[in-house]
Amino acid sequence: MKTDIEIAQEAVMLPIKEVAASYGILEDDIELYGKYKAKLSDQLWEQVKDKKDGKLVLVTAINPTPAGEGKTTTTVGLGEAFGVMEKKAMIALREPSLGPCFGIKGGAAGGGYAQIVPMEDLNLHFTGDFHAITSANNLLSALLDNHIHQGNALEIDTRQILWKRCLDMNDRALRNIVIGLGSKAEGFVREDHFVITVASEIMAILCLANDMDDLKERLGKIIVAYNYAGEPVTAHQLHAVGAMAALLKDALKPNLIQTLEHTGAIVHGGPFANIAHGCNSVRATKTALKLADIVVTEAGFGADLGAEKFMDIKCRKAGLKPDAIVLVATIRALKYNGGVPKDQLNQENIPALEKGIVNLAKHIENMQKYGVPVVVTLNSFLTDTEAEYQFVKTFCEERGCEFALSEVWEKGGKGGIQLAEKVLYTLENKESKFAPIYPDDMGLKEKVETVAKEIYGAKGVTYAPAALKALKKFEEMGYGNLPVCMAKTQYSLSDDQTKLGRPEGFEINVRDAYVSAGAGFVVVLTGAIMTMPGLPKKPAADGIDINKDGIITGLF
Amino acid sequence: MKTDIEIAQEAVMLPIKEVAASYGILEDDIELYGKYKAKLSDQLWEQVKDKKDGKLVLVTAINPTPAGEGKTTTTVGLGEAFGVMEKKAMIALREPSLGPCFGIKGGAAGGGYAQIVPMEDLNLHFTGDFHAITSANNLLSALLDNHIHQGNALEIDTRQILWKRCLDMNDRALRNIVIGLGSKAEGFVREDHFVITVASEIMAILCLANDMDDLKERLGKIIVAYNYAGEPVTAHQLHAVGAMAALLKDALKPNLIQTLEHTGAIVHGGPFANIAHGCNSVRATKTALKLADIVVTEAGFGADLGAEKFMDIKCRKAGLKPDAIVLVATIRALKYNGGVPKDQLNQENIPALEKGIVNLAKHIENMQKYGVPVVVTLNSFLTDTEAEYQFVKTFCEERGCEFALSEVWEKGGKGGIQLAEKVLYTLENKESKFAPIYPDDMGLKEKVETVAKEIYGAKGVTYAPAALKALKKFEEMGYGNLPVCMAKTQYSLSDDQTKLGRPEGFEINVRDAYVSAGAGFVVVLTGAIMTMPGLPKKPAADGIDINKDGIITGLF
Repeated sequence: MKTDIEIAQEAVMLPIKEVAASYGILEDDIELYGKYKAKLSDQLWEQVKDKKDGKLVLVTAINPTPAGEGKTTTTVGLGEAFGVMEKKAMIALREPSLGPCFGIKGGAAGGGYAQIVPMEDLNLHFTGDFHAITSANNLLSALLDNHIHQGNALEIDTRQILWKRCLDMNDRALRNIVIGLGSKAEGFVREDHFVITVASEIMAILCLANDMDDLKERLGKIIVAYNYAGEPVTAHQLHAVGAMAALLKDALKPNLIQTLEHTGAIVHGGPFANIAHGCNSVRATKTALKLADIVVTEAGFGADLGAEKFMDIKCRKAGLKPDAIVLVATIRALKYNGGVPKDQLNQENIPALEKGIVNLAKHIENMQKYGVPVVVTLNSFLTDTEAEYQFVKTFCEERGCEFALSEVWEKGGKGGIQLAEKVLYTLENKESKFAPIYPDDMGLKEKVETVAKEIYGAKGVTYAPAALKALKKFEEMGYGNLPVCMAKTQYSLSDDQTKLGRPEGFEINVRDAYVSAGAGFVVVLTGAIMTMPGLPKKPAADGIDINKDGIITGLF
Repeated sequence: MKTDIEIAQEAVMLPIKEVAASYGILEDDIELYGKYKAKLSDQLWEQVKDKKDGKLVLVTAINPTPAGEGKTTTTVGLGEAFGVMEKKAMIALREPSLGPCFGIKGGAAGGGYAQIVPMEDLNLHFTGDFHAITSANNLLSALLDNHIHQGNALEIDTRQILWKRCLDMNDRALRNIVIGLGSKAEGFVREDHFVITVASEIMAILCLANDMDDLKERLGKIIVAYNYAGEPVTAHQLHAVGAMAALLKDALKPNLIQTLEHTGAIVHGGPFANIAHGCNSVRATKTALKLADIVVTEAGFGADLGAEKFMDIKCRKAGLKPDAIVLVATIRALKYNGGVPKDQLNQENIPALEKGIVNLAKHIENMQKYGVPVVVTLNSFLTDTEAEYQFVKTFCEERGCEFALSEVWEKGGKGGIQLAEKVLYTLENKESKFAPIYPDDMGLKEKVETVAKEIYGAKGVTYAPAALKALKKFEEMGYGNLPVCMAKTQYSLSDDQTKLGRPEGFEINVRDAYVSAGAGFVVVLTGAIMTMPGLPKKPAADGIDINKDGIITGLF
């Protein structure tokens, strides 16, 4: 069987200017990065911004399991399927992080015959957006430490610095460090931390900013530290905004690439889905909606985190409205949720499916609470049986959802036509009455409790004293009307990753909270959240190589 | 008076594909990065590699002074002047580092009407080469620390780790740090250091590598640490080479931009000129020699460091031969060398000029020792007088050098025609009998002494015990036939930056040495060398801004 990278390398790509032309974009309105990548210019946005929006389809999933779900693969394949059907569709995805490529995970560009290309470029530096974010993040750090070193006019309390340096690398040794060692000329000694670039608040800001002015305003609001009087010190006060924004000039422009079947893919931004909102950029989604009749996009992790934030943070803030939701599951993952060990997932097991499908049921109910029609799709595996499919199909249809099998991994767009037809049917026949799950003017604690009870199915929320204090403080500081961004394990609806299926009677335990004032949300932490991954014993980097002709192997 | 960035922003650039076409390069053989930047493809090199080389002209300078010399401005202006004369010329320059843009120095793209453009892009992320180097450098660090964390099979001694992390940022707080703090899961605690990206050995490697195979071989040779038995541990042993090379795939390709007057400029690589060799990439220079009849290139700092390394490291290793050297000085800098304070340089002062010109004299003698004909040029200032020009002209002509005034800052190519004519005359009438100053098979100490005596004018060399021990060890390890890369202050021919003019009777004090086994030279340290700059009290970042239309201000 061919690997993803082999399939990707065999692809005959169209010059990206031809892909752009198929959406009515002139060559003058794109900025090429090689032959197969382009940035969409600011002029293009000015030209299309008053056009009517296409329909917005969100692809989300049940809670992730080791059995694999294939959310990105489904998103790409659905875009390809619309292409086969000669619909004017486009997909809008996140950019992958460089760090995990060298760790366990490998690349992130879909899989099989449902991939976006050029795959190696996408997974390595792409158009440099993440490097620009890294630079802007670390410039702010350098200006902060320099300010303290040069006299500390703002009276920054070095015990209360919130801003962290970042790198797009899996590097556990940088999680906790001490900087400024040496002599007087080397600055003040203090504790610092590196996060991976996708966890930088600047990533979230870039993805939520409408334009350059909005970007600058958000950058200025970043709280970098507190001063000795306990007041916040911002990036604006450090005079960092102009230089940071200059560094982000090109990163703010969405990137255009293509699927293996030449559907346009706007791939832009990639914030974490726990401490941030986990969606591609607002600019990318809005541009796609102007260029295509149907836009297929995706949110990180399962629907309890990804779709919730897509709707309660991104759509709320950007004025977007999803017209349909595609909920991805697999027979294997549902059986795993029903208690079947990973090595026995190949056998038909209807009782386990019945037991595990409650996870899917809860996500269906959740999405329906937002007023958006749902299409459930099963990403097919060779070991699935017809009886299993029938069981799931009936289950979904009883809940008012369309259902379709997806074979896009194996067959590309042709394998996604059934799904595409169900999505089209839904868009044409079922109205979206989208509304966020809580209003802006609800208290922060009430917002947390709404998400915990309505979406996670918790019976209540407990707070550590630090969390209570923080939430109260943020309301006093004027951040009470921001949405909450829940940092929770993706593996369970609860905050305990071992609880599969549809846990009940549990409490969500809020440990702490902080405000991402530039991004515009209050991050609520349940349990320990890792913002700098490590490398495994045998890192993926070990197997990556490039030959003298520039052909890369081992990036999967 | 207009600032450099204002002049640059007023420029009407040609699409870079048109500039490429003027050198016979097809659109298919470049990879565009927007409309005005391109990478030269590997296929292009395959097509041109057997062509006859053009002539190679090196621009170097006297020791830098606060009065300013304008080496890059002269290089760019000379390229523009050849354009005015309808000669097929090209320039080959280093890429500027991002870090200093936000510190004191501002950008580095020439000045006035002798600039390369697009200036903002060049000074910000350009085509991402430095970010790729940063990523490759830090991947090696992450793999190193991960190896130790995962059992340390190579028995790496954490007290003897040589490899440092890097960022393209001026950030003094990262000079000396402690990493790996926290729990067992966070790895082993050890001391580490960040250098600025241009000081990474990978930068030097990229600039000296002929092709992908050579790059990989060099990366593999990097010594990252010593083990408990005192033996070197290499990047090859950490299985880091393939992944690092994959990260450097595009960075290895030279970049093409243009001058304000549309002369082609290959701008690629930018190693430090103290702990590394300070020249643009071998690939860039070789490609330019295939594309143009005359290639004007540049080396870092003054001729004692930059030109010496250009010839003894880059030309020796790459088989290049300079046909002429342009030595840049200013009346102001020569008077400063003659003891005139900075605020009195505007007044005519022939006695001071006589006293200070000894610096120029020594550099002329040095360049002649390499067998290469010299053209001296004065970068003109409004306050210079005719008598001062005549004095310098006569002085140079008595020493067998051509002489020309340069007014390229004010007038662009038209202001460089006199200089271009003298260079042409030299290329056509004076033969270069280039040879390095020492042979490969001389001992390392003898190489240091040759450079110190022949080039710096020292009476001898003293060694700290650590340095003697290191040089002996490197010869035992098989590195005795490498060239030496002297890390010395750029402000004096001696290792004492306060000694201007032509110091005599001094000794060079070698403090320590280390081997850059991948780059292929032994770094010899005289005095303290800063590899991570800091920011000043009022950083340039303070004044940088970008408006809603993407126009950047304050980058100078």
